[in-house]
Amino acid sequence: MFDYKLLAALAAVIEQAGFERAAQVLGLSQSAVSQRIKLLEARVGQPVLVRATPPVPTEVGRQLLNHVQQVRLLERDVQRQVPALDEPGLPERLRIALNADSLATWWAQAVGPFSAEQQVLFDLVVEDQDVGLKRMQGGEVAACLCSSERPVAGARSLALGAMRYRALASPAFMARHFAGGFALQRLVRTPGIVFGPDDYLQHRYLASLGIEEGFLHHLCPSSEGFVRMLEAGMGWGLVPELQASEQLRSGALVEICADTPVDVPLYWHHWRNGGQLLTQLTEHLRRTASLWLVPW
Amino acid sequence: MFDYKLLAALAAVIEQAGFERAAQVLGLSQSAVSQRIKLLEARVGQPVLVRATPPVPTEVGRQLLNHVQQVRLLERDVQRQVPALDEPGLPERLRIALNADSLATWWAQAVGPFSAEQQVLFDLVVEDQDVGLKRMQGGEVAACLCSSERPVAGARSLALGAMRYRALASPAFMARHFAGGFALQRLVRTPGIVFGPDDYLQHRYLASLGIEEGFLHHLCPSSEGFVRMLEAGMGWGLVPELQASEQLRSGALVEICADTPVDVPLYWHHWRNGGQLLTQLTEHLRRTASLWLVPW
Repeated sequence: MFDYKLLAALAAVIEQAGFERAAQVLGLSQSAVSQRIKLLEARVGQPVLVRATPPVPTEVGRQLLNHVQQVRLLERDVQRQVPALDEPGLPERLRIALNADSLATWWAQAVGPFSAEQQVLFDLVVEDQDVGLKRMQGGEVAACLCSSERPVAGARSLALGAMRYRALASPAFMARHFAGGFALQRLVRTPGIVFGPDDYLQHRYLASLGIEEGFLHHLCPSSEGFVRMLEAGMGWGLVPELQASEQLRSGALVEICADTPVDVPLYWHHWRNGGQLLTQLTEHLRRTASLWLVPW
Repeated sequence: MFDYKLLAALAAVIEQAGFERAAQVLGLSQSAVSQRIKLLEARVGQPVLVRATPPVPTEVGRQLLNHVQQVRLLERDVQRQVPALDEPGLPERLRIALNADSLATWWAQAVGPFSAEQQVLFDLVVEDQDVGLKRMQGGEVAACLCSSERPVAGARSLALGAMRYRALASPAFMARHFAGGFALQRLVRTPGIVFGPDDYLQHRYLASLGIEEGFLHHLCPSSEGFVRMLEAGMGWGLVPELQASEQLRSGALVEICADTPVDVPLYWHHWRNGGQLLTQLTEHLRRTASLWLVPW
């Protein structure tokens, strides 16, 4: 069998984003962790990680991490049957990649009861879909919530529904830029807000209205900061309906062009052999997601 | 003088996080951008960036980026005096690194009027303080808002005040874990919520209460997700007072231990020769920050 002390060292260095914190978590000296990684590399015959800040797994390192992640989930099932093996009082951790807007809105409501009941702790990482699925492929996360449908090898994807977005701005912003009424031609000259270089939602919205050109925009990589910037009249942008329901009710934000929603599908990617806990979480999400998502 | 076509190509590749998007922004083919980078490297006599995803500047690349950023800010001042040089209708972009909690709370309210008046677009990047200051050193951002006081070479730091945090949880969470009243010994056994591996705020809070050991926790790298998880009863954690004022008023969240705030100072780091726009923004923040921050 593999030497899991070595594999656990690799997993800790990647998950803790450094040798120092990995050593803390493992209760070892930093040089002991370093030794284990070197020993692992000697066995494998090639590097398992790139010594950068943070350390990055090599291709073979990814395959090993993938394996560790799956073994951990399977161990949990055994621990249920053989409780003596279990470390008492230490809840399981589930590492999940998800999109920022889900985390900012419905995720906690959906998993809160499950987390308390199952005594599971979540290690959440916010990633756009391509990076999230790559992390899954690399075994760094057990599941990934994103808008891409195609599962990675060894995993399944489950359609949960769609998040509904609306293009919003503050009444002051509308008065400043569209005093004479909404006009598409003016929209590209007024500042928009974009989450980051990988966020094409605003572009898609404009395309759906027939505008293919670029537009002025702020970059704001924070779901809540995004809404704060809209409220402050700094621009227009697409926000999950779930996140702006109060502002829409109070009139603090208004749709820039009436009834032009954009729906973005969400798929739950999970390991096929991910163990019972992951299966239960998948079942839980399948049952409850429609409380927050619209049908897709 | 330097060849600024080449330097602009380097800046675009780093700022757009890739050759393809850099080419789009510059209105060039991807191979033309690639050529410019190679030419620059031939002149400098060494690589200016590491071809990773995303590309990363080398040490000499950082120095060049730093220079480009400063030249851009100085150009803006000249453009005011010599408007003919100015591209009409294209607002200036200001790239700023800041902490997630400021962006989630007071930042937009503070800079909203300034942004509209000065027609400036913000490229915001969310970073913990060490990375943010490194980006500043590297010339990738013009300013950095963080809790570290020491300015990088060529920059100044200005104390704006402090964000006040409170350790909060939902009433249901308190009832589940502290039915017999709050007890410090129990706190480390109940799940906390931590923003990410670099967030030591919860640890500091426990230390201030005399607890030095580790504690169970979820990881949630989203300011808004953090509050959602607290509301869902998944754990306890420190939240800016600004962000939870409504929940504290309605009783949706309560302090886990009465009147034990933690204040975190915020410093505004800005280039000494950063041009007039940056000076005006600095002046604006100096004047208004006390509306949201407590004295430090």
